[in-house]
Amino acid sequence: MTGQETGRSRPQNAFYAQSGGVSAVINASACGVIETARKHRLAIRNVYAGRHGIVGALTEDLIDTSKESAVDIMALRHTPGGAFGSARYKLAGLDANRTEYTRLIEVFKAHDIGYFFYNGGNDSMDTAQKVAEMGRHLGYPLTCIGVPKTVDNDLPITDCCPGFGSAAKYIAISTREAALDVASMARTSTKVFVLEVMGRHAGWLAAAAGLAGQKAADAPHVILFPEVAFDADRFLAKVKLSVERYGYCVIVVSEGVRDASGKFLAEAGTKDAFGHAQLGGVGPLVAEMTRAALGFKFHWAVADYLQRSARHIVSAVDVEQAYAVGKAAVEFAVGGKNAVLPIIVRTSSKPYRWTIGEAPLAAIANKEKKVPRNFVSADGFGITAACRRYLSPLIGGEDYPPYRDGLPIYVKMKGIAVPKRLKRSFVL
Amino acid sequence: MTGQETGRSRPQNAFYAQSGGVSAVINASACGVIETARKHRLAIRNVYAGRHGIVGALTEDLIDTSKESAVDIMALRHTPGGAFGSARYKLAGLDANRTEYTRLIEVFKAHDIGYFFYNGGNDSMDTAQKVAEMGRHLGYPLTCIGVPKTVDNDLPITDCCPGFGSAAKYIAISTREAALDVASMARTSTKVFVLEVMGRHAGWLAAAAGLAGQKAADAPHVILFPEVAFDADRFLAKVKLSVERYGYCVIVVSEGVRDASGKFLAEAGTKDAFGHAQLGGVGPLVAEMTRAALGFKFHWAVADYLQRSARHIVSAVDVEQAYAVGKAAVEFAVGGKNAVLPIIVRTSSKPYRWTIGEAPLAAIANKEKKVPRNFVSADGFGITAACRRYLSPLIGGEDYPPYRDGLPIYVKMKGIAVPKRLKRSFVL
Repeated sequence: MTGQETGRSRPQNAFYAQSGGVSAVINASACGVIETARKHRLAIRNVYAGRHGIVGALTEDLIDTSKESAVDIMALRHTPGGAFGSARYKLAGLDANRTEYTRLIEVFKAHDIGYFFYNGGNDSMDTAQKVAEMGRHLGYPLTCIGVPKTVDNDLPITDCCPGFGSAAKYIAISTREAALDVASMARTSTKVFVLEVMGRHAGWLAAAAGLAGQKAADAPHVILFPEVAFDADRFLAKVKLSVERYGYCVIVVSEGVRDASGKFLAEAGTKDAFGHAQLGGVGPLVAEMTRAALGFKFHWAVADYLQRSARHIVSAVDVEQAYAVGKAAVEFAVGGKNAVLPIIVRTSSKPYRWTIGEAPLAAIANKEKKVPRNFVSADGFGITAACRRYLSPLIGGEDYPPYRDGLPIYVKMKGIAVPKRLKRSFVL
Repeated sequence: MTGQETGRSRPQNAFYAQSGGVSAVINASACGVIETARKHRLAIRNVYAGRHGIVGALTEDLIDTSKESAVDIMALRHTPGGAFGSARYKLAGLDANRTEYTRLIEVFKAHDIGYFFYNGGNDSMDTAQKVAEMGRHLGYPLTCIGVPKTVDNDLPITDCCPGFGSAAKYIAISTREAALDVASMARTSTKVFVLEVMGRHAGWLAAAAGLAGQKAADAPHVILFPEVAFDADRFLAKVKLSVERYGYCVIVVSEGVRDASGKFLAEAGTKDAFGHAQLGGVGPLVAEMTRAALGFKFHWAVADYLQRSARHIVSAVDVEQAYAVGKAAVEFAVGGKNAVLPIIVRTSSKPYRWTIGEAPLAAIANKEKKVPRNFVSADGFGITAACRRYLSPLIGGEDYPPYRDGLPIYVKMKGIAVPKRLKRSFVL
């Protein structure tokens, strides 16, 4: 691949940014982007990473990845979190506020950046799409390529999304392990255990807990999905039955569970004595509900960031896919493509086979893929065989990080800034 | 070793029971007991395990471990939870209620049980001690050996306690991983992250989080120990300083943190709108405290059972020690010892070397080992070099379970009951 093939007369720099909530494998995508760019020097001179994502572009705070050793870049593949810093920062619409977009182009121009790789979810694909439009509009043509990432697995078109498989594996394993604990104790102690997982709008992570068991007797006995309106009576009846039949009940609840009116259960209005909003999430809420109604002793866990940063137990498939989308993004760019992103295409479930496909950014932007009804069991509390066939390969294989003194060795970037070239600073 | 050496004229059966909260490695101790007993057939005919611990003895519900294959018993070494069921059931004092003790002896006599192996914490060592006394008193001499277990690490005399190292490793790794996540997001989102860990009376598990970082800038920035009275002003000042200096703050809080009056923070009296006790634990409580006082966006996680059942990331040292105390317990018994338990003796910290020692049950029973003051940093929010030297070897090494389809393969016992011999049933 040469600079010529991209329609450019000379190599240009690339900008790479991480966006939104991070994952255990987003750095594997960064690794794929940077390692692949280093193989295409005739097209891409250097990769600049935004310090804290798009914020780094706006503030002209660019990390010079050429100062990072090959060994350290390779170590990104096994390091969780966002090594360059991510951001929850949504650019306004093009009509509402052009200031941010013109600033981005200004910074890109100043640093001869001709490629924009945006590693994020559906919001970020929307932003990347707008940046491409704006570049064209301002006469600064820019190659904008998305790199998909979200633990929520809610991107459309792509079969699955890097970041999800690892969080899903963590949840399935944790459910299986905690269930063995509860089963041991249930005779004289805890009978109900609740694990709260992420997924505000889609229940993919909650569904993944379903992989922990095979038979009705196996945990989890109840999964609460955001896609299924919560019905307290039916829920309590199911918990009661589970305790009667199996001696205990393991419940996995999505943070996004809502009641019939569409209101988040976690925001159901409980306040503490000082009038503060209730501190616990939906996990403690449903746990307390079973105690109040049925009198069972309960325990609850909220995995929170642990589930999306648990690099120690990622899915090997997920790591491979995260790296592959980073690599493909660069190959798309140097191959002359624009306003697209690499996606995962499943060609077979058993044995699992996948390949990299391509989709326009516009097809992904701001759309959400929810768990379909045929993936949820008839009673609304479990997963179907079809769901299991879909999910199971995504948690396949282990890919352990290296250890020293009992702890995983994770890399920290040097993070050396590219010297600023613009006089004007930008206030966020 | 023969039956003769134990002072017995013929082999007798052994009773093994798991007691109290389980761990990721208590089954490794069971494995050690059963595999070792199988090598001493001249002394121990068969091992009967109590279904749900001592409850199984009282109700004459004994699991015949001879029906479990060698392969399945070996798999106990990598299976979390309590494979035979545990119990939170404390026998009354000898004077208060002899009914339970006489029932135990009755069941042991009926099944020709001459050995009692009790796998638990300080309460259980007390019970084992009393059973030994009662046997002597009733003219049914019984060999009673303790097998130490507790994730809390609060047993005296033994250098550490099987179960602790693995939970400690899980917490140190989770802290390191979640901290990378928070650091990525802090610029535009979450600045304070709180992880709540177990340890109602002793802060060993909270202290273990300290292994995640080396320098002041590294997470965790604040550890809240049960041994240090909580001072809200000093705590908030420390959180503020951490966010100012490093951009974020990771807090690890023990469930057992108390205020200056000795009251658990988690029971500080917050009630929800319906007058129910506050649902969240101390984790969400201190997180909300930082938001109210400092305005920082926060996230919190409560690891709960996940931390003590995470067999997928145990300490190899812990697994070895758990097996070793099970093995030693049987060797003590067939060697003619009584009313003792094997303990871990550290002979060197660097390199780490340990051996099995011996202590009388009475020396362990009902005593708690707290984190000493010289293990806590001057400001009360971190660990010292001495603490690090003590803790570090205990999380050493990885010992991964086998996997199939992305999930660990854990064994389930057949759990076949020994036919009952007593007419009378026992009501708990």
